[in-house]
Amino acid sequence: MWRGIIAEYSRYLPVTKDTPIITLQEGNTPLIPIGEAIGLDFPVYAKYEGLNPTGSFKDRGMTMAVSKAMEEGVNAVICASTGNTSASAAAYAAKAGLPCFVLIPEGATAVGKLSQALIHGAKVIAVKGNFDAALRIVRDLATQKGITLVNSLNPYRIEGQKTAAFEICDQLGHVPSHLCIPVGNAGNITAYWQGFQEYLNAGISNSLPVMLGFQAEGAAPIVYNRPIEKPETVATAIRIGNPASWEKALAARDESKGSILAITDEEILAAYRLLASKAGLFCEPASAASVAGLIEMNSSGYFQGKHNVSVVCILTGHGLKDPDNAFEQAPEVITAPPDYAVIQEIVMEG
Amino acid sequence: MWRGIIAEYSRYLPVTKDTPIITLQEGNTPLIPIGEAIGLDFPVYAKYEGLNPTGSFKDRGMTMAVSKAMEEGVNAVICASTGNTSASAAAYAAKAGLPCFVLIPEGATAVGKLSQALIHGAKVIAVKGNFDAALRIVRDLATQKGITLVNSLNPYRIEGQKTAAFEICDQLGHVPSHLCIPVGNAGNITAYWQGFQEYLNAGISNSLPVMLGFQAEGAAPIVYNRPIEKPETVATAIRIGNPASWEKALAARDESKGSILAITDEEILAAYRLLASKAGLFCEPASAASVAGLIEMNSSGYFQGKHNVSVVCILTGHGLKDPDNAFEQAPEVITAPPDYAVIQEIVMEG
Repeated sequence: MWRGIIAEYSRYLPVTKDTPIITLQEGNTPLIPIGEAIGLDFPVYAKYEGLNPTGSFKDRGMTMAVSKAMEEGVNAVICASTGNTSASAAAYAAKAGLPCFVLIPEGATAVGKLSQALIHGAKVIAVKGNFDAALRIVRDLATQKGITLVNSLNPYRIEGQKTAAFEICDQLGHVPSHLCIPVGNAGNITAYWQGFQEYLNAGISNSLPVMLGFQAEGAAPIVYNRPIEKPETVATAIRIGNPASWEKALAARDESKGSILAITDEEILAAYRLLASKAGLFCEPASAASVAGLIEMNSSGYFQGKHNVSVVCILTGHGLKDPDNAFEQAPEVITAPPDYAVIQEIVMEG
Repeated sequence: MWRGIIAEYSRYLPVTKDTPIITLQEGNTPLIPIGEAIGLDFPVYAKYEGLNPTGSFKDRGMTMAVSKAMEEGVNAVICASTGNTSASAAAYAAKAGLPCFVLIPEGATAVGKLSQALIHGAKVIAVKGNFDAALRIVRDLATQKGITLVNSLNPYRIEGQKTAAFEICDQLGHVPSHLCIPVGNAGNITAYWQGFQEYLNAGISNSLPVMLGFQAEGAAPIVYNRPIEKPETVATAIRIGNPASWEKALAARDESKGSILAITDEEILAAYRLLASKAGLFCEPASAASVAGLIEMNSSGYFQGKHNVSVVCILTGHGLKDPDNAFEQAPEVITAPPDYAVIQEIVMEG
């Protein structure tokens, strides 16, 4: 029985026997073959992180951050977030019995994510300002005794997130040749790279993947080598203008001989629809950036002549987080009377 | 690496080597201890079926129904559904490359579920009528050559769903003393009972659980022993007035010396809030019926004097399926200016 990422990978994590483990049995997410469905003729797998308990990869880092907060005896946790972090923080704080405060930029949070933070009992404060303003305030508040910041600035988050790299190696039985991953705040690409390196250093694996990161064209500070004042993209979970783990993302890129590239919102949405309608996988728009990037690189000939290619694409969050985007991207509902002949005609037309 | 329920449990399923397996690697959902969180002093586990690929237990049956449809060489699948079935049918049909038609009663489907059916490429037809009218039409359409009905009338659905009972035994290492489960159309209680019996007969396990089923007070035909013309409950996924598997549910109840009882919407919603705010688990209202029923039976003294009690509650679907219900049940968002002092005061008040 899977016991959650801390119990399963404790030897690689900064925990002791005295650490109280706050878990929702996150991790153990499926690795699903999608190559044929998306029209590629080499092995491609989706790591479907949307099947973590709160529907995103954030749970891997949050079980670590909240467990360590409990070990330190804090009285509350706090974060600024546009969505997935707040949902995860609220759920793990609930499990721990800790009060949780969430600051969100007003009007910028997908419906599903907001519903999660609220029902898990977090006090949700919508700030009339942008994410940076909210982050400044929570950083100041977290300097007070007894309040722990669980934003990605919390170092335990990346420790937990790196376990997804371990799982990929364990599930595949080998290291993929390439990892495709959306890049926003850049904590996740940092965490995966750290995880692959630790497995190599521990002698569990014997190679490293090439890291291929993808930013949305309108929010691509790493690609264009400058902070973006007003990042814009449909992929809200990676709408970040000044990534916290910028330098570490560059290191992952360069050390792995990889790339971090920009893709358009149109490419992201095309991959989002393709995954849902051909592979049966419903993900967040930001998640689809990994697959959009892979398709683009394949079209440009990047994989030509390469041997033993096996690619893993990270799907960071479940599509149910943002149903409004699905309605915008999908065909409409057809309305009909409860009449056999009318409906038969619709069905026969296909 | 988990390969989905058909590959993992093929010896218990009506498949052959020639069956094309259409899978999203459903199953392998966590079994999470919740006894302490919900205030009970014996072992209680939640089987968190919301972490199946489309967010509900329906995926277990749908992988079977769509795989068998492919084996039979059909041209399309069709169903009537108020939500979870249509989401699952659309996703598996997409994976199989089959057209999918979904009839829903107009205005009766939760936002998340509808967004799923649409983005997975199903043709969704909203019928101006109730579920029964929609079901009659799809049953008639499915008599046409090449169109397979994937409603719960499809016998392969229950075959797939029974694998959740296998998983519980495999995860716990023993059979739970009691299984608490929501009862709507009664296919799931039927499937679990069948699964526990098959594991016993195969010599894998050596006991059977007591089956405790729970219907919503306003949709409790089995409890009151008569069909309900207009079933009403906040738990839409079990709002069924005339269950398809009525007789089999009675058999599960009687053979296991169990009960099927009614609980109020207030009890269901209290359990829904409790699970989210204390156990960190966000489920559909219908799912919470299992926990609400357990709490009610414990209060009535049912477990007093019983030895070796270990209870598994089935949480059938993820809360993200129905964000609107969460907003209704949760505290509201607080709005504030981006001002440190104002927000500090809110945080200090707790």
